[in-house]
Amino acid sequence: MNRTTSGGELLLSIARRRGGSLRVQLERELRLAIQQGRLKANALVPSTRALASDLGLSRGVVVEAYEQLLAEGYLRAARGSGTRVAFRRADVEPLEASKSAETPPKYDFRPGLPDLELFPRRTWLMAMRRALAGAPDSAFDYPDPRGAPPAREALAAYLNRVRATRAHADNVVFFNGSAQGIGLVCRLLRERGARKLAVEDPGHADQCTDIQAAGLATPRIPVDERGLTVDRLERADADAVLVTPAHQFPTGAALAPERRAALLEWAERRRAIIIEDDYDAEYRYDREPVGALQGLTPERVVYVGSASKTLSPALRMGWVVAPRALVSGLADAKLHADRGSPAPEQVALGEFIESGEFDRHIRRTRSIYRKRRDALSAALKKHLPRLRVHGVAAGLHVYIELPAGANERAIVDAAQQRSIRVYGAASYRARPSAGPPALVVGYGALREERIDEAVRQLARVLRGNRSGD
Amino acid sequence: MNRTTSGGELLLSIARRRGGSLRVQLERELRLAIQQGRLKANALVPSTRALASDLGLSRGVVVEAYEQLLAEGYLRAARGSGTRVAFRRADVEPLEASKSAETPPKYDFRPGLPDLELFPRRTWLMAMRRALAGAPDSAFDYPDPRGAPPAREALAAYLNRVRATRAHADNVVFFNGSAQGIGLVCRLLRERGARKLAVEDPGHADQCTDIQAAGLATPRIPVDERGLTVDRLERADADAVLVTPAHQFPTGAALAPERRAALLEWAERRRAIIIEDDYDAEYRYDREPVGALQGLTPERVVYVGSASKTLSPALRMGWVVAPRALVSGLADAKLHADRGSPAPEQVALGEFIESGEFDRHIRRTRSIYRKRRDALSAALKKHLPRLRVHGVAAGLHVYIELPAGANERAIVDAAQQRSIRVYGAASYRARPSAGPPALVVGYGALREERIDEAVRQLARVLRGNRSGD
Repeated sequence: MNRTTSGGELLLSIARRRGGSLRVQLERELRLAIQQGRLKANALVPSTRALASDLGLSRGVVVEAYEQLLAEGYLRAARGSGTRVAFRRADVEPLEASKSAETPPKYDFRPGLPDLELFPRRTWLMAMRRALAGAPDSAFDYPDPRGAPPAREALAAYLNRVRATRAHADNVVFFNGSAQGIGLVCRLLRERGARKLAVEDPGHADQCTDIQAAGLATPRIPVDERGLTVDRLERADADAVLVTPAHQFPTGAALAPERRAALLEWAERRRAIIIEDDYDAEYRYDREPVGALQGLTPERVVYVGSASKTLSPALRMGWVVAPRALVSGLADAKLHADRGSPAPEQVALGEFIESGEFDRHIRRTRSIYRKRRDALSAALKKHLPRLRVHGVAAGLHVYIELPAGANERAIVDAAQQRSIRVYGAASYRARPSAGPPALVVGYGALREERIDEAVRQLARVLRGNRSGD
Repeated sequence: MNRTTSGGELLLSIARRRGGSLRVQLERELRLAIQQGRLKANALVPSTRALASDLGLSRGVVVEAYEQLLAEGYLRAARGSGTRVAFRRADVEPLEASKSAETPPKYDFRPGLPDLELFPRRTWLMAMRRALAGAPDSAFDYPDPRGAPPAREALAAYLNRVRATRAHADNVVFFNGSAQGIGLVCRLLRERGARKLAVEDPGHADQCTDIQAAGLATPRIPVDERGLTVDRLERADADAVLVTPAHQFPTGAALAPERRAALLEWAERRRAIIIEDDYDAEYRYDREPVGALQGLTPERVVYVGSASKTLSPALRMGWVVAPRALVSGLADAKLHADRGSPAPEQVALGEFIESGEFDRHIRRTRSIYRKRRDALSAALKKHLPRLRVHGVAAGLHVYIELPAGANERAIVDAAQQRSIRVYGAASYRARPSAGPPALVVGYGALREERIDEAVRQLARVLRGNRSGD
């Protein structure tokens, strides 16, 4: 049975048995009428007796509803003149609409993204089940800001085994992805007196923004095909450096042995900090991955990794292995930033590692990505045989030098016209116009059987821009 | 079959079929020997031929292992003089030991903590399963920094229904708990020119630290039994205020109707922002919860909530409903802080809400906490009948005024001696000595049947400190 009143300024609809008590329904209707402006500020509301009679409710229900809305500030009791609407509704414009989703391009060579289809939903859920079932109640309390202890232990053992780090559970701190970790490390270094953190050029542009937001200057150190030019670093007077030694982003270079030695020597001599961003190290195809720098000098290196490439960036799971001198400061920084990252999914990661599922997942996806890499290499040889390609040995992207004089921007735009998204190297450089034209071509999310056609179409775009192949 | 060599300075153990290829094992052993200092810097390592023969390995395996360690910087090829250890091992002291866990007290009246035993492990896992199974692949990409859209939709509908807010999915932003949300709102307000954010006194001390870290001054506004004294706020010249209107922390007062009206009027007049920390609003026992201020003036109120009290603080799940003028700035701040919180557990929360499990969980836990509240009230009446108790209508703690002249600190310490943890009001005040002595007594995590005895023992402590009743 529905009852409606339009007496006075009220239009209320109360349904018996619709769920919720009649009083709660009445309150909701009154609030809505006030919020929507149907009941205006200062308007007198009907007496409890009149409204009860209109709606066929007991007077007690209406009295209680009015009391609730008096307590919430929607109504006010006007002395000697009944009850009035208290609320002066601010003009509320319609909320901003959600951005309409763009049509995805036919081929997207976006770097830095794994194939989202490969996320191991079933085994991850199983790990989550074991994590939830096996955890003591105390695991549901506010977490250690560094993260859940069993997860830190499992991760330290994994990194020591697979990345040749020297990690200990006490020195591991979990973050929402590696970006938060790098950002808070930078703030901590700034607090401890650092002024300059050198970065690779080209490199991750958004990391640079985060570093500068932490108050550090970011001298750019050129990268060549042997990685960071450490002799240039010497002249930068930096207190720290952010490097991608295993697979430089975006050029794909591995830091050469003599440069690794020189870099460590630089850090020891200056008592500087090396932030080692090991962003896609699990994916190396032709030989074993190069071990992490951190294993050589754990007290000078902040090791940074994440599950964004191996599992999914949506998990927002990243970690830092910090030198002894920084770990408690870093845990404090995390505590103040957000009191720690979610613990249950960390415990699930620990389970995922210890059950061997993580290794199986890496092996499986590495083999898939290797095939895509091979398909890309073959297609580039076939359709763009004259271009030099770098960084094919590892990771989820390659770096393609365009012919001298090619208009990188025009090529990116022309490809976009044909629904092919490619990424110019310019956006990764300190001065976009400073470097030779190049493309950063991610293949992680492109299925093997589509790669040849994608490259064929890209080659047509390049020919169309008179920058030939 | 194990092979060991101690030829030269090497003590290596290679086990066939122990897992991992022989080359990988050899690399690991060599790295370890160098890291541990058994192989010293500049030491000549055996020739590949000699080591292969010592270990019964093919020479190719040793050559490959040496190449790997050359690439990683552990070895260097000395011109004309064979291969040497390159690595100058920094002196690494033992890592700091984990803090040993304290013995938990017999009775812990810690406020702000739900009963961790009540975390709905089974139904949460089911929600997680539906979230993982039902999500499109794109849900595993980098998330919208505000959080997963279906979760924001479910949460907005929930808050509108239960808390009388006016939320829209577009205006909801997920954070790692409410603390991160409040911290980033403060940074944003500071960027937009705010200088002073008034806070309640007594109030959440750690929030104050976060606000000051964002560069805002924190004038303290006294709280009485009708909540924040809004007339004092008028004199504080603040650009914003952080309040707990539903259940003031820690006094337990609900903001009185005329103060709610005055607060909103203040915000409209000054174009100021009210941050409404709705930290435990779901737990109100004797009547329906007071609706959120946000529902009255969504464009002046930043509504903040979390799942820390209803589910678990380990989930680190908090949210903000932001005014239109702030939401994109807040999403940007979240993007720069950590690129967003983990999406799958947000989607699980959405599933948990939409399946009705969240309502069922709230009803179930509310009934448990109500019984604990009743047991606490009865025990206080019985064992400490002369003390005034505030805030019993809602939440997971009460506020107990101690007799004038009682030594709050001494009582807290004496209780600790008897393995009873209670919390003095001093730690929640701007000037610890400024207010009357009081205890903040959380009962969320104390089982009903233990409460009478806990209070009886607490009463003995109070009598022992001659502050008794």
